[in-house]
Amino acid sequence: MTLPRPLPRDTGAADIRIAGTLFDEIAARTADVEGVSRPAFSDIETKTLALLVDFARAHGLEAWHDAGGNANFCLPGFRDADRFTIVGSHVDSVPFGGNFDGLAGVVAGLVCLVRASAKGAARIKPLHVLAMRGEESAWFGPCYIGSKALTGRLTAYELAARHKGDGRSLDEHMAEIGVSMDNVRAGEPLIDLSRIEAYLELHIEQGPLLIGKNIPAAIVSGIRGNIRHRSIRCLGEAGHSGAVPRAFRRDPVLAMADLLVRLDESWSTILQKGDDLVLTSGVVGTDPHRHAMSRIPDEVMFSLDIRSQSAATLERMRALIAAEMRQVERDRKVRFVLDEELYSQPALCDPSLVAGLKAAMERTGQAPFVMPSGGGHDAAVFGAAGVPSAMVFVRNQNGSHNPKEAMNLRDFIAAVDILDAFIKAPA
Amino acid sequence: MTLPRPLPRDTGAADIRIAGTLFDEIAARTADVEGVSRPAFSDIETKTLALLVDFARAHGLEAWHDAGGNANFCLPGFRDADRFTIVGSHVDSVPFGGNFDGLAGVVAGLVCLVRASAKGAARIKPLHVLAMRGEESAWFGPCYIGSKALTGRLTAYELAARHKGDGRSLDEHMAEIGVSMDNVRAGEPLIDLSRIEAYLELHIEQGPLLIGKNIPAAIVSGIRGNIRHRSIRCLGEAGHSGAVPRAFRRDPVLAMADLLVRLDESWSTILQKGDDLVLTSGVVGTDPHRHAMSRIPDEVMFSLDIRSQSAATLERMRALIAAEMRQVERDRKVRFVLDEELYSQPALCDPSLVAGLKAAMERTGQAPFVMPSGGGHDAAVFGAAGVPSAMVFVRNQNGSHNPKEAMNLRDFIAAVDILDAFIKAPA
Repeated sequence: MTLPRPLPRDTGAADIRIAGTLFDEIAARTADVEGVSRPAFSDIETKTLALLVDFARAHGLEAWHDAGGNANFCLPGFRDADRFTIVGSHVDSVPFGGNFDGLAGVVAGLVCLVRASAKGAARIKPLHVLAMRGEESAWFGPCYIGSKALTGRLTAYELAARHKGDGRSLDEHMAEIGVSMDNVRAGEPLIDLSRIEAYLELHIEQGPLLIGKNIPAAIVSGIRGNIRHRSIRCLGEAGHSGAVPRAFRRDPVLAMADLLVRLDESWSTILQKGDDLVLTSGVVGTDPHRHAMSRIPDEVMFSLDIRSQSAATLERMRALIAAEMRQVERDRKVRFVLDEELYSQPALCDPSLVAGLKAAMERTGQAPFVMPSGGGHDAAVFGAAGVPSAMVFVRNQNGSHNPKEAMNLRDFIAAVDILDAFIKAPA
Repeated sequence: MTLPRPLPRDTGAADIRIAGTLFDEIAARTADVEGVSRPAFSDIETKTLALLVDFARAHGLEAWHDAGGNANFCLPGFRDADRFTIVGSHVDSVPFGGNFDGLAGVVAGLVCLVRASAKGAARIKPLHVLAMRGEESAWFGPCYIGSKALTGRLTAYELAARHKGDGRSLDEHMAEIGVSMDNVRAGEPLIDLSRIEAYLELHIEQGPLLIGKNIPAAIVSGIRGNIRHRSIRCLGEAGHSGAVPRAFRRDPVLAMADLLVRLDESWSTILQKGDDLVLTSGVVGTDPHRHAMSRIPDEVMFSLDIRSQSAATLERMRALIAAEMRQVERDRKVRFVLDEELYSQPALCDPSLVAGLKAAMERTGQAPFVMPSGGGHDAAVFGAAGVPSAMVFVRNQNGSHNPKEAMNLRDFIAAVDILDAFIKAPA
């Protein structure tokens, strides 16, 4: 364990107070039984954007909504700049999530604007802050919905995905919020991508690396891609739990367990070979309307989420899953039925932006540190749409996607300082 | 495959018509989206008993309800016999269950009474038919509730069990139906057990053995006991599915899968040693209000149902489960939390009744065949309460506890004939 690095000198108590108040107010207004719940394309999400607009206007910033229903902010007079840098992130959260996953990136942009406003707009390059909707897959299945809609990359399959609560389609939910659905359905960008010089995103680290290294912030080298299935069904045959001998069974729960243990063993082997991989089955369940303790269930469903920085590793895992399923089907006389695969390609951050952010990090007095991102982010979508993109991570306790996530505001300001230093003098 | 054995000569078309009409009417009145649903201690169960009472009275039988809310039937004048044989079973079903599991045993008793009524009451020993409530564990967790209440063996823990639908306790549900709860809570039998000469139960076979052997009916040697847990929790730690490296994870779903595969492997080993065992996890699930595809869940729940004809094998399995849980807890940094164990002892059928039923089976023209029961039955509760008990099985397609269970009425009558022959001249 090394000693804590000294924080940069200009970490301002005023910035901490402003950011802290804004975080607290939004957490209070979007609180759930535990943590916060800000569903994608919901009224709660709309209210969150409205709170940000109120904050921005109170601090003399210009605010507007784009055709995707996202909130945008800039210093007065910079809305129509020919070219500008975006600092953006999302405001939705997973159910019972933490307050900082997504929101921290939006507040970071606003703090940059407030600083520039206080010190004179001329000190920074034209900057738009973008507060997006709908990044989390927890609500509909597809992820990065807000940025995909903006960049014209939302598919018909994704638009048909149903909300896990009310069962209505994403298309319906987006239309209700006032998104320009004709353009979205036609796959047309909702904004002029050619005007965006760079897309920068600050985000809490969602793993434990920066805590382990005792570093408040880092530059991101690239974003893991993923293969995901929201709901794979394993079909067997129902029967009396006490009366069907083992040899006659087609038990889908034991088959699912068998498959998951096989995949877990392969995961371990792949890591030992030095490849990058994470694997999660976050949702599993027999049918609550049909299952019983004394009944072999006829079916069980489960999700799969497989991520890697390497597209080749993802390809290999796709083939491995299919092969293991065939083996389990033969051994246990069950059948796996896959829903459509959701795929996100691994994304490298723009090398010149990474170099520029490293230099900016150094200018703030922090030793440059570069790491991969385990989670996917809207930055990958902008990158895939041809916009040079990069990210800054902030140290964060207890992971994310859970109510206990905890970002120290001094760490947050250390990361904002990197963005701020970069914007003052882009590489 | 041997040729079908000839059916006994006195298999009557009239009996088939009477039984078929009664089965069909009850199925129609208790139908669900699929199959039938007759919840324990529900209005639907009460209605089912009322239909049986109507049938019995229309056929000149005497009918009454006992202090447990069960329906009883006999030939006129035999209600107050000093000693009598019971032919009984239950009328409740699992959710989306089949029509014959339980109900067949009650209809069998009624067919015996109708036959005796037609041929003269004197031809049989005094006989009561008992149509019980609440045998299935699917609704509250505990099973054999009706017979346990009658024999004074229902525990406070079982009475506190909550209905899986409305969350109200078994005690409340039973009180609402009009059961004498003061006696039940005090553990007092609701009927005079010393008057019961024997308890006989006809039941569909819930496994595939009689189909494999091509035999319409069998005598039961004994009933598997069981160790059951309605809801075991595995506690881990929530986290982002993409950002937490494998070494930092405490994933409860992979831990549950690991445990189930270990138990499945032990099951296979135990069978190879020649011991009797079945194992089922019929209910599994992450929390629908908290889980998400992109989130390592903090917890998963699952049921366990382990059955054997040997009390020693059940003991060994209890120890094995505890040991495997400790190993998985160590390997995967999770914690298993067990709810209270539900236990039913293995039960041997009364040897002299088994001998008498074998002789009766022979007298009907069927070659005697004896087999164990995989499922538990009310007969085991009467046996444990000191009442000599035995069972007859009927061949049945597609197992039980599912809407596709299918008993041929000719097979049913072949089994009724065994009971009938036994009652005429008990061993």
